[in-house]
Amino acid sequence: MSILDYATVSLDDDNSALVIIDQTLLPNETKILHLTEQKDIWDAIYLLKVRGAPAIGDAAGIGIYLAAKQIKKTCQDFDSFYSEFAKARDYLDSARPTAVNLSWALKRMDGVVLANKDKSVDEIVELLKKEAIAIVDEDIWICRHIGEYGVELIKDGDGLLTHCNAGQLATAKYGTATAPMYIAHERGMKIKVFSDETRPLLQGARLTAYELHSAGIDVTSICDSAAPTVMRNGWVQAVFVGCDRVAANGDFANKIGTSAVALAAKRFGIPFYVAAPTSTIDLNTKSGKEIVIEQRDGKEVSTMWYQKPMIAEGVKIYNPAFDVTDNDLVTGFVTEYGVVKAPFEQGLKEVVEKAKKGHK
Amino acid sequence: MSILDYATVSLDDDNSALVIIDQTLLPNETKILHLTEQKDIWDAIYLLKVRGAPAIGDAAGIGIYLAAKQIKKTCQDFDSFYSEFAKARDYLDSARPTAVNLSWALKRMDGVVLANKDKSVDEIVELLKKEAIAIVDEDIWICRHIGEYGVELIKDGDGLLTHCNAGQLATAKYGTATAPMYIAHERGMKIKVFSDETRPLLQGARLTAYELHSAGIDVTSICDSAAPTVMRNGWVQAVFVGCDRVAANGDFANKIGTSAVALAAKRFGIPFYVAAPTSTIDLNTKSGKEIVIEQRDGKEVSTMWYQKPMIAEGVKIYNPAFDVTDNDLVTGFVTEYGVVKAPFEQGLKEVVEKAKKGHK
Repeated sequence: MSILDYATVSLDDDNSALVIIDQTLLPNETKILHLTEQKDIWDAIYLLKVRGAPAIGDAAGIGIYLAAKQIKKTCQDFDSFYSEFAKARDYLDSARPTAVNLSWALKRMDGVVLANKDKSVDEIVELLKKEAIAIVDEDIWICRHIGEYGVELIKDGDGLLTHCNAGQLATAKYGTATAPMYIAHERGMKIKVFSDETRPLLQGARLTAYELHSAGIDVTSICDSAAPTVMRNGWVQAVFVGCDRVAANGDFANKIGTSAVALAAKRFGIPFYVAAPTSTIDLNTKSGKEIVIEQRDGKEVSTMWYQKPMIAEGVKIYNPAFDVTDNDLVTGFVTEYGVVKAPFEQGLKEVVEKAKKGHK
Repeated sequence: MSILDYATVSLDDDNSALVIIDQTLLPNETKILHLTEQKDIWDAIYLLKVRGAPAIGDAAGIGIYLAAKQIKKTCQDFDSFYSEFAKARDYLDSARPTAVNLSWALKRMDGVVLANKDKSVDEIVELLKKEAIAIVDEDIWICRHIGEYGVELIKDGDGLLTHCNAGQLATAKYGTATAPMYIAHERGMKIKVFSDETRPLLQGARLTAYELHSAGIDVTSICDSAAPTVMRNGWVQAVFVGCDRVAANGDFANKIGTSAVALAAKRFGIPFYVAAPTSTIDLNTKSGKEIVIEQRDGKEVSTMWYQKPMIAEGVKIYNPAFDVTDNDLVTGFVTEYGVVKAPFEQGLKEVVEKAKKGHK
């Protein structure tokens, strides 16, 4: 059984547990977790057992539905139900305060409760289940469409390069940056993918290389610093990366190291595409300068994954989790409503408008 | 006692052992090795216990002197002595066939033997000792001068960035890329150094951050992929890196990832300096295209330093040890005879000519 046969995030058949793959153990161990308690779901998000913006949103939707189901047992009137629901919502939201999709999914679930005040608590909980499943289904729909638009940018025989994991393991299916690769592979096209290992947490080495290899795609793992060399060698015809936030002008934030890949792609004349679900486009952020970069513990750099610390005690460590890539380095944003090319301002607005009208 | 109080490479007081720090154990353990047997010296070079082009040259000089001293015990006529000497020379030379300084130092020691055929074996061995010590002394002289020219490029309060370890641990003293930093520090200037960790072997994290910190220099370790971010933040006023080979046109090879740093420096308008002993300038190599890049075992990427493999079995790994940086990204080469700026062709020729006339 391949890692891709497991759903990254799902509600189990009994509607009683959030089912995820413990991604901290990959690629060495495939452990499927069935989580029912809020504390365990919180931990799973906090400890990156489930990670990737869309997957976190999916997990949050299912997680808060499971909370509501528990609350229903003791709170049958709306006010007491909602009071407990709000507590559970805020608790889950605190697991990763900077992950946009976490609060986005919880807000959406909250909206379902508030819009159905007049219904019974039983009915509300049933609607929450539908909404949680809808969030997962939309995630799949979005990734599939990103893949279909993205595959048009790939030619048979192309070498592609990606950074970090914007793969199936970061979404319910297909991934974002990997979706064009999976669809190219589905269509029988031959592609060769270079996967940056992505220090410090090695999502590229541990997850992306693993999932693409599991799918039968030709994948080569490289150190982040080797990306300019594989480009110089003429092995890369296009770059696809994910993104955490796209500003109105097309500057965007993604995993640390993305901007280095973009600079190298520019140098060697290689198209650089950003797989961007419209949910990541933030028109209220004017440019990359306004994007606040999450700083993480230096221990991720000095000791995580190692037997012994690799950095002497006392040495300072700077560990930004993301970086900003300037819009002039971007060839196009691949969204679920098509590819947006420069000038970005107008095109990004248009796809956001389309998304507001609703998916499907 | 600081790590900098130990000589990276030296001949012990009895003239009986090569003394090195086992660099594979740093920064967790400081183990000083006293090596007398040729097999142990070969292993130390092969296993990177001593590494860095100049330090390897220093170790080879002392190593072959120690071999000659042993050979002298049984071979007192020139012919039998030289026959054994040549075997020992070729054996040491095989430890790292791509390290230029290894064969360079051995050729130089061989020249001493051949130029003194008419002398007694005792006298020849004494001359070999002098030559081995001269190689180390010249290394220190060269690094000191690179430091003195390089420090003129630094202003008090500057932030500097370096990649890999072209530090004291790669030479007999001062290092090449770090020499301007040590001399700035000697002069009481305040500098702040960012040290790229340098995947896959982490020489930056394990060695550079450690030695600079030991010297009391403000140093921050970062993932290689974070270099563009610290530059974007305005924290870096100059980059200093080492080099393994400089082509006649100023293209140069250095540790994998150097070209990514150069691209980012160009982007953010930061001067990019290459500390280059004239011995690394190879006028017979016309451009970077002619430089052959050493490919190393993928296991360095997937498992070295880790408890468990980080990459799934079956995934290919591409692990080039060096990369080529184009000359248009270089602000200047800092040699022991001054700073060479663009156009490089003429300036590089001139410093090589000066070096031919002899150091000091």
